[in-house]
Amino acid sequence: MVRVYLTESDHGLKPLLKCLHDELGVLGATVTRGVAGFGASGVVHSAGLVDLSTDLPLVLEFFDRPDRARIAIERIKDFVDPGHLVSWSVRVEGDERASASPG
Amino acid sequence: MVRVYLTESDHGLKPLLKCLHDELGVLGATVTRGVAGFGASGVVHSAGLVDLSTDLPLVLEFFDRPDRARIAIERIKDFVDPGHLVSWSVRVEGDERASASPG
Amino acid sequence: MVRVYLTESDHGLKPLLKCLHDELGVLGATVTRGVAGFGASGVVHSAGLVDLSTDLPLVLEFFDRPDRARIAIERIKDFVDPGHLVSWSVRVEGDERASASPG
Repeated sequence: MVRVYLTESDHGLKPLLKCLHDELGVLGATVTRGVAGFGASGVVHSAGLVDLSTDLPLVLEFFDRPDRARIAIERIKDFVDPGHLVSWSVRVEGDERASASPG
Repeated sequence: MVRVYLTESDHGLKPLLKCLHDELGVLGATVTRGVAGFGASGVVHSAGLVDLSTDLPLVLEFFDRPDRARIAIERIKDFVDPGHLVSWSVRVEGDERASASPG
Repeated sequence: MVRVYLTESDHGLKPLLKCLHDELGVLGATVTRGVAGFGASGVVHSAGLVDLSTDLPLVLEFFDRPDRARIAIERIKDFVDPGHLVSWSVRVEGDERASASPG
């Protein structure tokens, strides 16, 4: 499983999704929007407070076979801020195409 | 930790939650709605674009002891599309009932 | 990666975020709101049903170096219900400050 931390304001989501889908063809990807968060910049983004932020965190996750996930990480890491890309191994049930990611 | 990928249109969420809660009694489960994503079908679901999709990704996650998580996976995997069920080991802090999932 | 399960009604989120940001200075944290879920209490929270719940699950996740993540877990676990705090190791790409969490 590979996770990329973005925010709504950095406009990095669409090119990343396009790359993962069209070029790399990873098995699956999902994007969720956070309601609060902070990163290396130290800024706390939060929805539902008085200073309603429009720059909420976005979390993009995708998975594939370990070797393909590794290739995808190398491909996209220049688009992502350092420390905003994490990965861990998972077991994919019932699919011979992918048994763990990213190894 | 076990994760199941669904979409809003496949109506699989309610029966799964009912099974996990009533029959399997797993320690905890949460469901989050994604704002974009794609799967093996290759379709990109996305909220907030002009063609506002009503078929957004749903991510169901639950955890339990490794042996109980494994039983749960075997029980539910027929309800889930191949490759839409992933799992990884976690450490549960401060609870003797569960120390890792699913092993 | 450390994950804490909260609900909207328990008001534990703000003090936790403040502790993680101001006192512990973890590398990053995000909060997402679930649309349904249940925990040790056995209550199913769900948005979008007739009995529209205002007590939805909140999932707080943060990551840091293994040693710092461990310190953070020890610091916050008294604020969290038993079994509501899970962790697993991740690889952080492109950041020398953090290579895995929490080890």
